[in-house]
Amino acid sequence: MAQPRYLTGDKAGIEEFIDKFDSFLFDCDGVYILAPNLTPARNILMVGVLWSGDHLFPKVPEVLEMLRSKGKQLVFVTNNSTKSRADYKKKFDKLGIPAEVNEVFGSSYSAAIYISRILSLPSPKNKVFVLGESGIEAELESENVPYVGGTDPSLRRDITPEDFAAIADGSMLDDDVGIVLSGLDFHVNYLKLAIAFAYLRRGAQFLATNTDSTLPMAHAFFPGAGSVGAPLVKSIGREALALGKPSQAMMDAIEGKFKVDREKTCMVGDRLNTDIQFGIEGKLGGTLMVCTGVNSKEDILGEGKPIVPAAYVDSLGDLMG
Amino acid sequence: MAQPRYLTGDKAGIEEFIDKFDSFLFDCDGVYILAPNLTPARNILMVGVLWSGDHLFPKVPEVLEMLRSKGKQLVFVTNNSTKSRADYKKKFDKLGIPAEVNEVFGSSYSAAIYISRILSLPSPKNKVFVLGESGIEAELESENVPYVGGTDPSLRRDITPEDFAAIADGSMLDDDVGIVLSGLDFHVNYLKLAIAFAYLRRGAQFLATNTDSTLPMAHAFFPGAGSVGAPLVKSIGREALALGKPSQAMMDAIEGKFKVDREKTCMVGDRLNTDIQFGIEGKLGGTLMVCTGVNSKEDILGEGKPIVPAAYVDSLGDLMG
Repeated sequence: MAQPRYLTGDKAGIEEFIDKFDSFLFDCDGVYILAPNLTPARNILMVGVLWSGDHLFPKVPEVLEMLRSKGKQLVFVTNNSTKSRADYKKKFDKLGIPAEVNEVFGSSYSAAIYISRILSLPSPKNKVFVLGESGIEAELESENVPYVGGTDPSLRRDITPEDFAAIADGSMLDDDVGIVLSGLDFHVNYLKLAIAFAYLRRGAQFLATNTDSTLPMAHAFFPGAGSVGAPLVKSIGREALALGKPSQAMMDAIEGKFKVDREKTCMVGDRLNTDIQFGIEGKLGGTLMVCTGVNSKEDILGEGKPIVPAAYVDSLGDLMG
Repeated sequence: MAQPRYLTGDKAGIEEFIDKFDSFLFDCDGVYILAPNLTPARNILMVGVLWSGDHLFPKVPEVLEMLRSKGKQLVFVTNNSTKSRADYKKKFDKLGIPAEVNEVFGSSYSAAIYISRILSLPSPKNKVFVLGESGIEAELESENVPYVGGTDPSLRRDITPEDFAAIADGSMLDDDVGIVLSGLDFHVNYLKLAIAFAYLRRGAQFLATNTDSTLPMAHAFFPGAGSVGAPLVKSIGREALALGKPSQAMMDAIEGKFKVDREKTCMVGDRLNTDIQFGIEGKLGGTLMVCTGVNSKEDILGEGKPIVPAAYVDSLGDLMG
């Protein structure tokens, strides 16, 4: 198997690599690693491609501007479903990452694109019951997809005996709901789960923004979107179609939205089994691993490594040469 | 393989069968079946061993009294974790089933017995974080097991940014919690799931009252205890030890509580893959299937049937001869 090309310090190699592509997809989801120098209760640190904790890696803005000056299309890919692209833009601004709203591609938007452009259920039976936050609602609205549930305050309460009866006889259900979309919902409750389950039993399509089991937050782990939606998976007895990484449904949605040429697209990420795998399975022209995340050079060099990127750098800033 | 003995109408056979046992365990969990004569929205009917819908099967009270008059010990076994034994006694009274509180054995009580008498963690590290309702709390109290969570009103609210920090740094956690017990919680929310997950990450034992995926109610299906606890299974990446049927941990707890002689105990149930299997795996002296539930004679007669009871009757009342 071909060994990945090491680009750090290789000015000519970097130029040749960059020239091969028109589009670069950047992973934006942080990964937590053990950081033993911190206190025991907070001994993990979020790392990734663009930032570590609250700090950008060196020369990240310069690399992004350099790629733009060469006419490259940039897409920032994230599995975070609670934030809309506009929310993400604000986060990027705060971190000092130069990015446009249209360059952000989150799993909620991926789901909205999938529902409106790929699934294309005939109206009015294309209504979505949302188990999730406002980020999902905003992205569905951007694609003119009708929905119920979500942040509806009338569902943020305990289930009552009357609810059980009204869900059972269907009087509480919307006949137009043909899709259940499950994401990260910090306001999940039994009432919403019971309603979503009833729609699934009626035959609604079962989608998920992403199925990450945990959510890294406050230097610890919390239940992720895949865990919040797990009651639906368990009760209906089948998995949802996931629209986030590493599902290729997300790659299809990116292609549908940006009209990228896969041959001329490079996935940039720090995790082999999600980001790099995502690019390889998507048959992209290239994959670039940055060694500022969980995986290291040892994971990709030598014989018999299962997932190997086309190239790697110690840090994204090394692309400045 | 020996064919099961058909006891309906066989007066001598019934007497001989009953004489073999000192104790009878009765399944109390209803099973829903399709009942096409009802309206489409409510086309399923709950059946079981003792009752169908809200009505007892014929001669059920007589059978129970007959067994008692012969000095048999009766145990009513249920996976329902939301009700305590006292709650169940009220339900039995309403249905007209003669039963004592001490004869009821629910999955919550099973869990309490398992924690106090079998797991026996050294105090004070035997405190339980409960994801569930008051039935679980009542049974833990009956075994003097300390607990937090459960119906605590301070946890029935949305998670806040401060909660994320306080769960992450441990200041919101109780250092004595060594067990997470997951059951059916109609007030499940993200805050409780996040706290339970944090305890599991710290190494707490992971128990479940039962892992039924659905709950039959109001002539329909709702998410069951196993579905409510599914976020914990997904996020921690391992299954809980289930204390309800068909887990043999429940049989161990029944044996520990009632000191039954398994050789002289008979499990009475309507479902082959839960009740009858539960009795066979528990190496009980006998199993009796009633044909008033989901399974029928065709499922047990002939060659190559995977699960076969020792005997069967059309209806429990047939034991009156």
